[in-house]
Amino acid sequence: MKALLLVAHGSRRKQSNDEVETLAEKLKNNCGEQYGIVKSAFLELADVLIPDGIEQCIEDGATSITILPYFLNSGRHVVTDIPNIINTCTIQHPNINISLAPHLGASDLMIDLLITSAVNAKSVEA
Amino acid sequence: MKALLLVAHGSRRKQSNDEVETLAEKLKNNCGEQYGIVKSAFLELADVLIPDGIEQCIEDGATSITILPYFLNSGRHVVTDIPNIINTCTIQHPNINISLAPHLGASDLMIDLLITSAVNAKSVEA
Repeated sequence: MKALLLVAHGSRRKQSNDEVETLAEKLKNNCGEQYGIVKSAFLELADVLIPDGIEQCIEDGATSITILPYFLNSGRHVVTDIPNIINTCTIQHPNINISLAPHLGASDLMIDLLITSAVNAKSVEA
Repeated sequence: MKALLLVAHGSRRKQSNDEVETLAEKLKNNCGEQYGIVKSAFLELADVLIPDGIEQCIEDGATSITILPYFLNSGRHVVTDIPNIINTCTIQHPNINISLAPHLGASDLMIDLLITSAVNAKSVEA
């Protein structure tokens, strides 16, 4: 079974973490039958952390896990920290195929998202 | 003339700021004739800062400026800091219509972007 693991930075502000979990729920409801498992995890500051998220996917029956970094830029977290964590998990679970998606800013759809977002702008009154 | 101002947090890492500027260029090339001006600005840590970005748009002939926050979550920067800065600019430029778009995570297109991104995932080898 294929799993998607949405990985965000994690915040001290609960609402930000809740937004990520809500997004993972929406993702689950919209990705069709291609992914039987969709979960969220955090790099730091919030539960569940990435290794635990990967463990949970495997416990639920995942044989393949795609990590989706919920990050805009190719900063240190995306280029170094997350790959290092995944690498350790890959060693621990050699039979699970773990893959890593690009950061969001690399997506061709980002332009469409921004232009659509501009339509929903609200006037700022002085 | 209508302007789009893509506003990111700003990073000490030049490459992250360059990615934002490159994205603003792509946005300029793809938003058609609806927006005559497309620029980028930063909340902190990098040039140009938001008030200067707004000034530049006005100098280039903008009569209406849509601020696009390049932020994933509705954290303090999106809810408080950016609106406060824009509010001050609105007082200084009462004849310019300044509007603020929602954060990216609020977009319906985010789900499509994530699912598309998953297709481009690369296997992590131990």
